Amino acid sequence: MFPNPSRPLVSAPAETAVLALLLAEGPLSRVELARRTGLSSTAVTKAAKPLIEDGYLYELPPERTAPGAGRPVNPLAVSPDREFFVGVKISADALYGAVCDLRAQVRTTAGRPLGDRGPEAVCALLAELVDELLDADPAYRPHTRHLGIAVSGDVDRPAGRVRYSVLPGWRDIPFAELVAAATGLTVTLENDVKALTTAEHWFGEGIGTEYFALVTIGAGIGSGLVVNNRLIAGAHGVAGELGHIGVDPNGPRCHCGSVGCVEAIASTDAVLGAIRRGSDRPDLDFAAAVEAARAGDRTARDAFARAGRAIGVGIANLVNLIGPERVVVTGEGLDTYDLLDTHILHSYAAHCFGAAQCPLILRPLPWEEWARGAAVVGIQALLP
Amino acid sequence: MFPNPSRPLVSAPAETAVLALLLAEGPLSRVELARRTGLSSTAVTKAAKPLIEDGYLYELPPERTAPGAGRPVNPLAVSPDREFFVGVKISADALYGAVCDLRAQVRTTAGRPLGDRGPEAVCALLAELVDELLDADPAYRPHTRHLGIAVSGDVDRPAGRVRYSVLPGWRDIPFAELVAAATGLTVTLENDVKALTTAEHWFGEGIGTEYFALVTIGAGIGSGLVVNNRLIAGAHGVAGELGHIGVDPNGPRCHCGSVGCVEAIASTDAVLGAIRRGSDRPDLDFAAAVEAARAGDRTARDAFARAGRAIGVGIANLVNLIGPERVVVTGEGLDTYDLLDTHILHSYAAHCFGAAQCPLILRPLPWEEWARGAAVVGIQALLP
Ligand SMILES: [Zn+2]
Ligand SMILES: [Zn+2]
Repeated sequence: MFPNPSRPLVSAPAETAVLALLLAEGPLSRVELARRTGLSSTAVTKAAKPLIEDGYLYELPPERTAPGAGRPVNPLAVSPDREFFVGVKISADALYGAVCDLRAQVRTTAGRPLGDRGPEAVCALLAELVDELLDADPAYRPHTRHLGIAVSGDVDRPAGRVRYSVLPGWRDIPFAELVAAATGLTVTLENDVKALTTAEHWFGEGIGTEYFALVTIGAGIGSGLVVNNRLIAGAHGVAGELGHIGVDPNGPRCHCGSVGCVEAIASTDAVLGAIRRGSDRPDLDFAAAVEAARAGDRTARDAFARAGRAIGVGIANLVNLIGPERVVVTGEGLDTYDLLDTHILHSYAAHCFGAAQCPLILRPLPWEEWARGAAVVGIQALLP
Repeated sequence: MFPNPSRPLVSAPAETAVLALLLAEGPLSRVELARRTGLSSTAVTKAAKPLIEDGYLYELPPERTAPGAGRPVNPLAVSPDREFFVGVKISADALYGAVCDLRAQVRTTAGRPLGDRGPEAVCALLAELVDELLDADPAYRPHTRHLGIAVSGDVDRPAGRVRYSVLPGWRDIPFAELVAAATGLTVTLENDVKALTTAEHWFGEGIGTEYFALVTIGAGIGSGLVVNNRLIAGAHGVAGELGHIGVDPNGPRCHCGSVGCVEAIASTDAVLGAIRRGSDRPDLDFAAAVEAARAGDRTARDAFARAGRAIGVGIANLVNLIGPERVVVTGEGLDTYDLLDTHILHSYAAHCFGAAQCPLILRPLPWEEWARGAAVVGIQALLP
């Protein structure tokens, strides 16, 4: 984090456990908190005290469960307005921003079209966007310390650097430091799919799962993987590269240099390329290709079918290795899901190994959800 | 564990951290322990005290690092003979047993050919083998509480049940309970590849890695995966199924029901089947097939080449998803590694995504190492 690793809000493992559970699941009694965290009631009370004093937690009015059920309990709850978090997603052609509260509810959104993609220009535009977001409500600025930024590609989160990102076209940019200087906020930079996975794991479909995966399909294909409650980062910062797992030795060459990668068969560009070649219409655009497929054109339908099968076997391979409880499938590729779905689902089911097969949940996420993902990275920074 | 989950030796996280580090890495000073665990020196001293009193740890003689380097330090070390652990691997045709000390050194080995594969018969033979092992040294019996059993297939470790194992041919057998009753020991039952992975992670090539994988090749193909220092178990107890990830839509049908699995292309049986069909010699045995390949027979060489490519892309897929620091490749398939190696390595390198590529370490492990893996599962049971 930049400028400095700020002191986490909590430091003892007990405080972390209590706050994390309340963030993810909403109000819980101390008894329930003790049961769920494995802590003693005394330890829960002790852990909650400083968080109540700092205004992060508060006691709800007493709740009598049933007549004669013993003394009333005051559930503990997170004060959502105690702190706000800004999140910004950098995409190829726009910045998407959001202010979220402590419970990751989106409170305000705003965006900017992106012209100049140089790091300094993007940083200046991003600072402007943050200003606009924080001006939207007088409560925001005094209670906002953290800014999360999500960007595609290879991100060194601890160092705050974009090592490589195709979409803005950056290589080794210390972007967190630039933005921290421009905004005065503590900045955390994260890969966009990882940020979205964390947001879904803490506050979405992944709540309560120890093994969870999020898959994005569209222009790129990627995944975020949660194992034993933690995101897989990889020893060298590379993990979850679902787009580049090999599923066909006779498949097309991939931009990564390999052959038969899921992305080389199933990305938007790959599908369009296959339809252009197969129909001998090199000028076809993606919308027209989709229209042709929906109208029953054999070449176009086959290209989507092949893409769906590659995505399905790719997800099955991931499931056979990791064993998630649920897989969320999202990304702009869901716009053409009607052309992909039977192929994805059939291929997925055919390639899952025994008990590993788990539900696939389709979840179209609008761009503001990606900005929320970035903000959640800031919330996460409260915990060590 | 059976008969009862025994009280772990340590309960506080600090004690666990100190003991785990000393088990894996050998003697360390309290200062070094504090630095590595992130605990205070006081916390390390406090955590070590009961373990010293119980005889699990002891202080080495003082060690002066350099003249004038301050007061001498007494490194802490594990007492290897404080407790012994029995491990037994059940294979298709034999039981392999070992006694290990607290630092996972193999002290005694013994085995039994397996005739009747029914659970009761195997249990009786296993109890005999355990007796023989414990009789090998008078020090063993009074200091042995734990027996680890490793078996291939789908094992429900917490329940102590073999859900399904092809090799002895069992389905839903409460084997840990049977063996606990027959031996009087606390029994932990684990999948053999997972047990071996834990042994390599704690005491072998995986020491010090947070992301690690072990791949076995041969009659079956499987893997054990370590992420954030913990073995991946999968939400439904299925994970690391490298043998059943799909790498070729035009590949052969697999016994699991799917198509183009790594195991369907690259297991010993799959390679032999391909050579038999290609050479029209349905009676060929594996030794003759290997000999033919080594003598330059095209059909035989091609079958091994295809197997090597499937293994290589399978490992690359695993690496692209998990990002391990190192991958150990083992299993009886290493006997024919001369026919596979260039194909595995070429295909692996071609399919790894960028910085994810990590060293593959070939490590032929004799059968006693599998028994050691089973014993390590018992050592692991000391820690919560
Ligand atoms: Zn690729
Ligand atoms: Zn299979």
